Amino acid sequence: MLKRAKVAIIMGSDSDLATMTEAIKILKDYGVKHEVKILSAHRSPDDTAKFSKNARKNGFSLIIAGAGGAAHLAGIVASHTTLPVIGVPMETKELKGIDSLLSTLQMPSGVPVATVAIGKTGAKNAAILALEILGITDKAIEKKLDILKKSLVESVRSKNRS
Amino acid sequence: MLKRAKVAIIMGSDSDLATMTEAIKILKDYGVKHEVKILSAHRSPDDTAKFSKNARKNGFSLIIAGAGGAAHLAGIVASHTTLPVIGVPMETKELKGIDSLLSTLQMPSGVPVATVAIGKTGAKNAAILALEILGITDKAIEKKLDILKKSLVESVRSKNRS
Amino acid sequence: MLKRAKVAIIMGSDSDLATMTEAIKILKDYGVKHEVKILSAHRSPDDTAKFSKNARKNGFSLIIAGAGGAAHLAGIVASHTTLPVIGVPMETKELKGIDSLLSTLQMPSGVPVATVAIGKTGAKNAAILALEILGITDKAIEKKLDILKKSLVESVRSKNRS
Amino acid sequence: MLKRAKVAIIMGSDSDLATMTEAIKILKDYGVKHEVKILSAHRSPDDTAKFSKNARKNGFSLIIAGAGGAAHLAGIVASHTTLPVIGVPMETKELKGIDSLLSTLQMPSGVPVATVAIGKTGAKNAAILALEILGITDKAIEKKLDILKKSLVESVRSKNRS
Amino acid sequence: MLKRAKVAIIMGSDSDLATMTEAIKILKDYGVKHEVKILSAHRSPDDTAKFSKNARKNGFSLIIAGAGGAAHLAGIVASHTTLPVIGVPMETKELKGIDSLLSTLQMPSGVPVATVAIGKTGAKNAAILALEILGITDKAIEKKLDILKKSLVESVRSKNRS
Amino acid sequence: MLKRAKVAIIMGSDSDLATMTEAIKILKDYGVKHEVKILSAHRSPDDTAKFSKNARKNGFSLIIAGAGGAAHLAGIVASHTTLPVIGVPMETKELKGIDSLLSTLQMPSGVPVATVAIGKTGAKNAAILALEILGITDKAIEKKLDILKKSLVESVRSKNRS
Amino acid sequence: MLKRAKVAIIMGSDSDLATMTEAIKILKDYGVKHEVKILSAHRSPDDTAKFSKNARKNGFSLIIAGAGGAAHLAGIVASHTTLPVIGVPMETKELKGIDSLLSTLQMPSGVPVATVAIGKTGAKNAAILALEILGITDKAIEKKLDILKKSLVESVRSKNRS
Amino acid sequence: MLKRAKVAIIMGSDSDLATMTEAIKILKDYGVKHEVKILSAHRSPDDTAKFSKNARKNGFSLIIAGAGGAAHLAGIVASHTTLPVIGVPMETKELKGIDSLLSTLQMPSGVPVATVAIGKTGAKNAAILALEILGITDKAIEKKLDILKKSLVESVRSKNRS
Repeated sequence: MLKRAKVAIIMGSDSDLATMTEAIKILKDYGVKHEVKILSAHRSPDDTAKFSKNARKNGFSLIIAGAGGAAHLAGIVASHTTLPVIGVPMETKELKGIDSLLSTLQMPSGVPVATVAIGKTGAKNAAILALEILGITDKAIEKKLDILKKSLVESVRSKNRS
Repeated sequence: MLKRAKVAIIMGSDSDLATMTEAIKILKDYGVKHEVKILSAHRSPDDTAKFSKNARKNGFSLIIAGAGGAAHLAGIVASHTTLPVIGVPMETKELKGIDSLLSTLQMPSGVPVATVAIGKTGAKNAAILALEILGITDKAIEKKLDILKKSLVESVRSKNRS
Repeated sequence: MLKRAKVAIIMGSDSDLATMTEAIKILKDYGVKHEVKILSAHRSPDDTAKFSKNARKNGFSLIIAGAGGAAHLAGIVASHTTLPVIGVPMETKELKGIDSLLSTLQMPSGVPVATVAIGKTGAKNAAILALEILGITDKAIEKKLDILKKSLVESVRSKNRS
Repeated sequence: MLKRAKVAIIMGSDSDLATMTEAIKILKDYGVKHEVKILSAHRSPDDTAKFSKNARKNGFSLIIAGAGGAAHLAGIVASHTTLPVIGVPMETKELKGIDSLLSTLQMPSGVPVATVAIGKTGAKNAAILALEILGITDKAIEKKLDILKKSLVESVRSKNRS
Repeated sequence: MLKRAKVAIIMGSDSDLATMTEAIKILKDYGVKHEVKILSAHRSPDDTAKFSKNARKNGFSLIIAGAGGAAHLAGIVASHTTLPVIGVPMETKELKGIDSLLSTLQMPSGVPVATVAIGKTGAKNAAILALEILGITDKAIEKKLDILKKSLVESVRSKNRS
Repeated sequence: MLKRAKVAIIMGSDSDLATMTEAIKILKDYGVKHEVKILSAHRSPDDTAKFSKNARKNGFSLIIAGAGGAAHLAGIVASHTTLPVIGVPMETKELKGIDSLLSTLQMPSGVPVATVAIGKTGAKNAAILALEILGITDKAIEKKLDILKKSLVESVRSKNRS
Repeated sequence: MLKRAKVAIIMGSDSDLATMTEAIKILKDYGVKHEVKILSAHRSPDDTAKFSKNARKNGFSLIIAGAGGAAHLAGIVASHTTLPVIGVPMETKELKGIDSLLSTLQMPSGVPVATVAIGKTGAKNAAILALEILGITDKAIEKKLDILKKSLVESVRSKNRS
Repeated sequence: MLKRAKVAIIMGSDSDLATMTEAIKILKDYGVKHEVKILSAHRSPDDTAKFSKNARKNGFSLIIAGAGGAAHLAGIVASHTTLPVIGVPMETKELKGIDSLLSTLQMPSGVPVATVAIGKTGAKNAAILALEILGITDKAIEKKLDILKKSLVESVRSKNRS
């Protein structure tokens, strides 16, 4: 039923792409359909609202949103959809992502954003969290995640041997 | 020309009213037309967008927006209008308003929010900043601000005497 | 297919119950099956590992974990399962939850935790995020979330009228 | 009436010029009259006071002040004038601008500073905020800001296409 | 030669008096001449400048300045005098005095402020630091400070015995 | 009795080795038996649990654990053993180790982690702390630490002479 | 061999006793000899130095030191002894113990302090860490710690049942 | 009477010399006698205590102490003398000097440290503060400080002209 599951990866600016690529690569590797879009809560608010409102109708199962500074993107998308929204706080030049983190995480009750770590690690984990969510009902993804889990153990062990 | 200047005071939740009342009282005292609205960037995003887009047309000269936590209200309003937007970061229970402050202030280039101090002091100053902005071209307000300025000096002096 | 979806709500200590009750109430209201457990990453690590490893087998679709201070619970659960784990950082006496937040959020790549806001707001949003995740494939939940979304708008509007 | 609107851009040190240039360029681009001055709250306090007291009389409509560290410049200017003062917190070597930010923002009631983001983004936004303020009564600026707003949307869209 | 040494204790607001009283009491106890004034960097800037410029001429040997928030008082006084200025950062409601601290301490080169701890402890220590400074050349104060030093040891020892 | 004292140095990732090498070098220099292992609280949780449970039986006297970000390693090891665990918070790219520090230090009552400074200084001090602990009952180590203590004094003095 | 192990519990001020009592109670419960002293790094530095230099000779096996603010006590004790020193950062009124924490933890290489959590939890854990250290070579303590470990598991389980 | 005034500049490590040189240069320029010493609160505590106790007897009028991390040097010196102690918090690799700052500033009542800005700016200002303190009773220094004050104004003005 989720075979056609599709994930949106959106970001506030093309400068976020270097970070968000980490998420894109993982979804590609796992063969999950996805679309990548630049959408700004502040510079293209109507496009963002329109995208968010139609996301479910357009076949998306969940949305990964990366933004920095007064990072409103994930929160604004969440205000327009009942799909789960995963927020990736970008590292920022001055405040190192503390601003992005608090702006993404401290959402009011009723409108959650699933926030992950700051920066590239967060982008990777956003993709894996998306897989875990899809894997609740998708056996194929569940199996691939089991393999990932084992490979994590194995990679630690092999480093130990060397 | 600005005689019909009208200021909007909006806030994300009725729990912000105790703070934003400080701004309302000052605008009342100065005889500036104003409207007070509860508008949430997250709970009523379409109403907020609609209000913001029409604010100038509806006769507003500027907008004061108070919000807490992942405080997106001022930023979202600013994304929809070219009127000046003054942001008041609410004090929050856990992080004391640091979250509200960074979410309001750290806006991307092109979409400024004029941020003032956290909490009630900020709410008061938002109103006075609004008066200063209107006072650029409104001689009557300018004069009242001169009186305020002198009264500040005088209040310090009288405390010294006592 | 998800009709039998069941959510685990676990917490590090019974002192976290006052906060996590906010999540429990929402799952109850929405008629989602759930189990509540006290499991400590530090005081009962084997029980926690065992629970986490068997969570999927035992019919859980996702896990909400609340913990404070060096809040390892959500991360440790996530290390043992490929189910999505939602972390709720507890407010703490001295550091106000900043410690809980960073300990829950800053997970290494491969092992994400979906972190929500600090404290009671976060607990509520953890439940709603759980609903959104289940709602990807469960039409009944999706509909209830649509109603919630509309009620949020309506509650803001009615506050405006009063 | 505002045709002769003139904006002052002042800064605490010539080392701030690399940042404040962002504001200057925008005012130039928009054809707004402006003057640039180095004025230090701490090294040339009397010149700063004199400038601030006479700013309105000398034809300035508002003042943009950039300073770093114990950034007192915007606040001191605001203490001497009822013109709106926009504060740009400089990034600092050790504390990354958190010191500049709190010193600029946390003004006492009666003496607001309209604070924008830390560093170059803030400098740009200070200029745009100035335009928005002047645009309340100046139709020509209002129109240019509308064009800016549209160009922001368009720039996001064109990035999406590429 | 310093017999006529006189210390100024100034503060930004009468609400700071509860804290600054700790400094006043110590100067009284030690029989050091002192004057207490309310002077605001933001509300009475000209009075503050005038006071600072004339402080040495008016017989002051040093100035203790307490202020909170964007605490500019000590820095502004220091900009107008070559007397040593001791800054006491007030505890603040939201940010607990971190704002006062950074605004007082992070002065640019050429204009130092001798900053002490936040709040009442800082106020006490400001007075003792003043005594230490006067005690460089005043044997009577030096002796009293020796007695204080010994009493500190003794108070710890007597607590140990009880 | 402690002659066979053996110290475990474990770390969450091979990227931590550059830091933890500082601890290894010191134990080598002092002739203390030690083993180095990569063990991740999140990627190889069962190996970590097994190692920790058997550490005492396997002849270890104490464990030094280095980890970064949501640094759970030291805490998880401590949950499985009653041996003393010394935690070294790694410096992190974005938050500079504040996340590692709070995740390592803020342990719940009953499960302490002896936390040392962030980064390489901490790694060195973890080894010296281990020596101090072993030195309680091992006269040979005690003597070597006395020599270290004297060499610290001497190194300061010799720098003074040059 | 460690039967005569004796632990020193020292603190900077009698106001720290309410917190440090948590450590004292645990050592009492476990039947570990201990002495409690008030010793201030700043008010009675010579007594503190003397105590520290003689601590080993006087039969102490390790030292627990609690202090707040610019918390130098643990570090100064560590500068005078090669016994392990455990530092407990006190909660402070304004900065909540962040100052105590950094002052205790960030020691230079060569002079470690084993730092535990802020406040009462830290005081408890300081005592348990002391027991763990003594338990390396003392079978009786090791056994009691095993019982503690099991009781922690059991307490979590019993809470689950209720 | 102060002609023979002599200032001590001490620092915790030779790595602090690059920063403290800023203070040394200024004292040299002003012709103030001074001695430079490396003294560590943690590595050479007895030398530090001895130096501090004898500082006044050895002709020092005040002491400038620079240290980083758990920066105890200024506080420990202040515990042993009634001379004024000026503390310079060093910038640190991980925490940027926030640790040095809080460890230097947050002294308990009775034992003040006059803290200046973090890093090189602080080192410069420590020297100028020392001059201001000596200038209370030394007319020659007072005059030189007046010249410095004027040169600060002039330097700002000349930058304005260029």
